[in-house]
Amino acid sequence: MDYKLDHIGIAVRHLDESILFYENVLQGTLLDRYRSELKGVESEIAIMEVCGNRIELLAPTNNTTSPIARFIKQKGKGVHHIAYDVKDLDEALKELESKGVRTLKDTLRINNHGRRLIYLNPADTDGTIIEYCDYPEQN
Amino acid sequence: MDYKLDHIGIAVRHLDESILFYENVLQGTLLDRYRSELKGVESEIAIMEVCGNRIELLAPTNNTTSPIARFIKQKGKGVHHIAYDVKDLDEALKELESKGVRTLKDTLRINNHGRRLIYLNPADTDGTIIEYCDYPEQN
Repeated sequence: MDYKLDHIGIAVRHLDESILFYENVLQGTLLDRYRSELKGVESEIAIMEVCGNRIELLAPTNNTTSPIARFIKQKGKGVHHIAYDVKDLDEALKELESKGVRTLKDTLRINNHGRRLIYLNPADTDGTIIEYCDYPEQN
Repeated sequence: MDYKLDHIGIAVRHLDESILFYENVLQGTLLDRYRSELKGVESEIAIMEVCGNRIELLAPTNNTTSPIARFIKQKGKGVHHIAYDVKDLDEALKELESKGVRTLKDTLRINNHGRRLIYLNPADTDGTIIEYCDYPEQN
């Protein structure tokens, strides 16, 4: 197993303001910014490099259907998920299954940048939203 | 500025169960475990190395006064804070002040392991609980 931290996902309300905070206070760099209207995403997303790690800022684009909007309504803004690059998602999913850890199957997708990802079921991760991802083109 | 990610703090209810998850599923290693009844902490804490980064699991030891208990009551279990090692906390605090970012002054403390730390005011960090810390003995 050769996993590593890929990014920390943060639920925000106003993407521009949030980017400014990470640029000005933590000297982050905006690497990428895009909008995804995929079901289960429905967010505008900024990828930032902050102190050598990546922070993914997610702002809902639909206040009713976006899971980020629901998260903010229930819990407030703040850290949404921790994402691990598991190198080979298929192998990692087999391993999870063998350990009785479920995933949220409807979150399995390929994002705008070729990253394959899935969320683990928070009922099996002690409440934390954990994303497993890989970058198939790099394997 | 030479900050780096120090750890991710996670609010949990049952420390033993949580440790098992990170050991079994993410092949983490328990580095340390201690209890702090300091006002504003009141938690049992496990420090784990997980995929090359540190995860700090915090379980409340007092259901009324522990800030972790309050966090879980309001938001549920999950990521509580992101901590950056800022190398020199005094310098970092001056920089924050010059940028108009407030801290929660009553959270300033030295923990059981000589780490000096303070939480930034979430009203000025777009809602995320961010800890700044340094390790004075290493400077």
